[in-house]
Amino acid sequence: MKLVWFLPVALLIVTQVALGSNNGNNGLDMAAQRRAANIHRMDTIILLTYVSVMVVIVVTAWAFKHYRLRFIHESGVTLFYGLLIGFVIRYFGLGLLQSQTFDVETKNKTVVKEPPDYLMLEVKPEGGSSVSFHYELIEGFFADKRKKIEQQIEQKSVFSPEVFFNMLIPPIIFNAGYSLKKRHFFRNIGSILAIVFIGTTISCFGTGCLMFVFTSIFQMGYTFKELLFFGALISATDPVTIISVFNDMNVEADLFALIFGESALNDAVAIVLSEVIENFSTSSEAITLHDFGSAIAGFAGVFFGSLMLGFGIGCMNAFLTKMTLISEHPLLESSLFVLISYISFLVAEVCGLTGIVSVLFCGIAQAHYTYNNLSDESQSNTKHFFHMISFIMESFIFCYIGVSVFVTNNQRWSFSFLLFSLISITASRALFVYPLSWLLNIRRRPKIPKRYQHMILFAGLRGAMAFALAGRNTSTENRQTIFATTTAVVIVTVLVNGGLTSWMIEYLQIKHGKDAIEEGQRLENSMSCSRGEQHSDLEETIPVTMAPGLNPWDKAFLPRKWYHFDASFMKPLLTHATPSLEQTLPPFCLPITSLLTSSRQRAYLNTDPLDTIVQSGAASLIDGSGCIEESV
Amino acid sequence: MKLVWFLPVALLIVTQVALGSNNGNNGLDMAAQRRAANIHRMDTIILLTYVSVMVVIVVTAWAFKHYRLRFIHESGVTLFYGLLIGFVIRYFGLGLLQSQTFDVETKNKTVVKEPPDYLMLEVKPEGGSSVSFHYELIEGFFADKRKKIEQQIEQKSVFSPEVFFNMLIPPIIFNAGYSLKKRHFFRNIGSILAIVFIGTTISCFGTGCLMFVFTSIFQMGYTFKELLFFGALISATDPVTIISVFNDMNVEADLFALIFGESALNDAVAIVLSEVIENFSTSSEAITLHDFGSAIAGFAGVFFGSLMLGFGIGCMNAFLTKMTLISEHPLLESSLFVLISYISFLVAEVCGLTGIVSVLFCGIAQAHYTYNNLSDESQSNTKHFFHMISFIMESFIFCYIGVSVFVTNNQRWSFSFLLFSLISITASRALFVYPLSWLLNIRRRPKIPKRYQHMILFAGLRGAMAFALAGRNTSTENRQTIFATTTAVVIVTVLVNGGLTSWMIEYLQIKHGKDAIEEGQRLENSMSCSRGEQHSDLEETIPVTMAPGLNPWDKAFLPRKWYHFDASFMKPLLTHATPSLEQTLPPFCLPITSLLTSSRQRAYLNTDPLDTIVQSGAASLIDGSGCIEESV
Repeated sequence: MKLVWFLPVALLIVTQVALGSNNGNNGLDMAAQRRAANIHRMDTIILLTYVSVMVVIVVTAWAFKHYRLRFIHESGVTLFYGLLIGFVIRYFGLGLLQSQTFDVETKNKTVVKEPPDYLMLEVKPEGGSSVSFHYELIEGFFADKRKKIEQQIEQKSVFSPEVFFNMLIPPIIFNAGYSLKKRHFFRNIGSILAIVFIGTTISCFGTGCLMFVFTSIFQMGYTFKELLFFGALISATDPVTIISVFNDMNVEADLFALIFGESALNDAVAIVLSEVIENFSTSSEAITLHDFGSAIAGFAGVFFGSLMLGFGIGCMNAFLTKMTLISEHPLLESSLFVLISYISFLVAEVCGLTGIVSVLFCGIAQAHYTYNNLSDESQSNTKHFFHMISFIMESFIFCYIGVSVFVTNNQRWSFSFLLFSLISITASRALFVYPLSWLLNIRRRPKIPKRYQHMILFAGLRGAMAFALAGRNTSTENRQTIFATTTAVVIVTVLVNGGLTSWMIEYLQIKHGKDAIEEGQRLENSMSCSRGEQHSDLEETIPVTMAPGLNPWDKAFLPRKWYHFDASFMKPLLTHATPSLEQTLPPFCLPITSLLTSSRQRAYLNTDPLDTIVQSGAASLIDGSGCIEESV
Repeated sequence: MKLVWFLPVALLIVTQVALGSNNGNNGLDMAAQRRAANIHRMDTIILLTYVSVMVVIVVTAWAFKHYRLRFIHESGVTLFYGLLIGFVIRYFGLGLLQSQTFDVETKNKTVVKEPPDYLMLEVKPEGGSSVSFHYELIEGFFADKRKKIEQQIEQKSVFSPEVFFNMLIPPIIFNAGYSLKKRHFFRNIGSILAIVFIGTTISCFGTGCLMFVFTSIFQMGYTFKELLFFGALISATDPVTIISVFNDMNVEADLFALIFGESALNDAVAIVLSEVIENFSTSSEAITLHDFGSAIAGFAGVFFGSLMLGFGIGCMNAFLTKMTLISEHPLLESSLFVLISYISFLVAEVCGLTGIVSVLFCGIAQAHYTYNNLSDESQSNTKHFFHMISFIMESFIFCYIGVSVFVTNNQRWSFSFLLFSLISITASRALFVYPLSWLLNIRRRPKIPKRYQHMILFAGLRGAMAFALAGRNTSTENRQTIFATTTAVVIVTVLVNGGLTSWMIEYLQIKHGKDAIEEGQRLENSMSCSRGEQHSDLEETIPVTMAPGLNPWDKAFLPRKWYHFDASFMKPLLTHATPSLEQTLPPFCLPITSLLTSSRQRAYLNTDPLDTIVQSGAASLIDGSGCIEESV
């Protein structure tokens, strides 16, 4: 134990020496340390509040599921908790933290027309030389007119909109694509796309026009562009609440597919629409026909550009995982999967496209191709990872929406505007649901029944995307009103529509629970009959002959073409599925195709057909059903 | 297709109306929009750069594993990529972004002694009324003397140290606790704790004193406190690189346990030491004996307070998962697990304790208790989740350390200081490794051989924690030198020691690969013999009688007490393990114990013993071995 003595002795000696070395001013150092400690404390308090609420939310969600409470949905509860916290922070004066705000002016007294990005202030500590410090413009709340000597925790608990767009939203959207129940989705693809493209556009312009009429009558001073922007962002419906209720209640699969498909995809349309509207020619206030034409072109370019990019990156990853042996190292494989999925978002944003669209289609491509190449461990790993991340992010956003009502300084409340908004969005939603269903029903079999149409109208809940879009720029008072109104619309729809969903399902006599499952199986069987014994056959080797009998609603030219292309080229190229390219492409391509055929593909061909079925069964795990899944 | 016509017509009508409504100044709105777009673009470019490099890193890591390259380790490669990117950003003038920095002064011309937290600047847009904008002091780089008109992307690619401490480090540390190979760890617990507590303290003060001698001789003007702080932060060794090499090479389990144990736990000691040193009485520059005494007390309080808190929160979660049926909903269960683990970090920080210590012991408690209560899905889910997150965070940090060399403005290079540091840290590491091993070897069986001691000395790689601690406060020039030096030490040790690890293992003739495994099994068998056929027996029902024969080095009073307490009280209370509390506690406690016994525990007792073994085997999955794991 000699060492124990060594320490204090050595310390004492050096301490005496140290007494002589007092140089350098210490004031700034101490200030920096105090400030760092303060910031750290505040940050951790805020994080702790949010995370604790999330724990409460998870426990509540479990209790709701366990006791089968349905009068209010979890996301409603989450919102409610958020409101509560916001209220407490605001009115109980919690988290008052000493801080200083100084009024400054430019050194040469020039009048500033636009806020500069950075300021530099000279500070002269006592007994030291002067040092310059940099200050950065606070994003998000801009133009705050209140002047405070004390900085309250409420200001700090506001996130930059950048965090929303770059961190919180992408995993949610990716998960929507990755966990897509492909079978029912693709069976209804035509109707879904019609609702998503035509419906969202009608909703956007309908809301914009109606709001313009209202605000013009009451002279509230909004430009048409602002209201169109509002129309675009408020048209993004949210899948979280409604889909969760539908899942719990086992609602009919086709209705599920329609509503999920709409809410998953229309975020993408809404974001592109809102970006196009934001970029409308800004020299003049009005919108001309030329603007409109270029907007349409811009919309198409951005949407399909993003789609192709995301899909392409997904395919690239599929190819990478197929051609390398990275599946021997599931950790690296899963990490690569996560990173590349995120890249699809970032590349699109950097290229001026829409990351959300890109990441959604990257998710679909990853589910369709890459998933089949992954090791078993990575399959379950990535599925659960995105499921959990997406769940946590969603809960967090709903909680944050609640908090923001009381805490942010960039919301300006206008109850007349809110009232008009609720009327406008309901009216413009009705304006596309019924006419569009009527149009679709002309050719669609089975038709979309009236009760589905009512349910689609009712299912127009708003959520994270609308909130995030509205919060992105709150520089003017009108934009602040739009932000506040969007928050309120989210809260109202989630609480009212979300809470009444299960009641509505009963009221509209929509099949659910065992009924829906039996119905689904009956339909399934009747379709399987026409396909004969193909399930015990080599499903993937003869996809071309299977196609026509498969999807009664999928006889359109384009889907069929895509389906053939997918089965005979994309799947053999990007996955280990058989037949390989060596079989599907003409023989003269052999030098290339043999390079692109994996040893696993060759091995399957030489083994018992039964193995292949096991393989294809595993591949369709994500859907939970091994039936027509793989051939869509 | 009537609807298609509806849109442009309606739009045209409204457009004409809209022409009349140009009010409100638009300049500010446009500026805000442009600024938001710029920031978004810059953020996404930076994120894309980092994420792309991460993809390259993962692919490289795979290639290294696949082709069994060992001359340089992945974390070395990661560092190298980081350096490369930093170099390109810095010297190729990439990412030059137009931005404005204005020199300002306070309105009433008062001289500012400390930088205020916020500034407020009045902006008067053309034709509009003036608006005030808030500016916030930029954290992290403080006191930047360069004045720039153009803002380069390099500044934006620097993270706030808050992000490091609150987001990146906790999952890594938690994973270290959660994935602890408990068996070998606890077998060496005495030696590990000695190295961690005494060793790290010696290293801290040794480095501080040596550096003080050096800097005093060369009159570099550092206070003893600064150098002690440097000694504390640089004593945190990093497990990532070395453990990864050890894993690949299957190095002897005891050496593995010693080095992993040290590097996993000494982060906690280093962070507490550095905090205690930072809070040394700051009125006088020197350190008195009284300071020293209160520092020891402070250290003990903070360390054990954090330990108890983290462990307690882990136990709380175990109790929660045991007593509720939340395992029926794996998604909620996993989310709860992740959130509560994070809470253990946040609560500690808010209470003024050390989050890292707390989250580490929360991880250990979760692995020891909660893990056994989780559903199968959640078990694999949480394990993979933390493994992956931790891997991604680690890679990111190494990359970021490389980038920071070229990009940050708060590093000040001093090569003499670096040289002295390298000498001091090696010397002070030798100063504890050899004497401590000698002391431990007096009672320890088997002894720590000389080759182990050399390897422990050699394994002193520095990493994320040292870097993060140094970057937390860079307000003075001395601190900036310390930060730069820490960065350099990380790079040198990771590249040199990391690269030479596998060579060193051969050179020191440390058993690895098959040899080590056989050696381990031989030892294992010789120990199993003394325990008889207990593996096919009811391992957990008779732990008390098993204990003495188990661990030849674990005969100390305290470990044995803890072991008994754990087996007869903690495990029955917090997990579904048998015997239940009903059996281990005296009968008069029955009213309480029956409440705390789960139905699963009762069910086990009434079934075949074989089932219980299956259960205990599953429970020890995290260790990969089902042997003495559960009884430690």
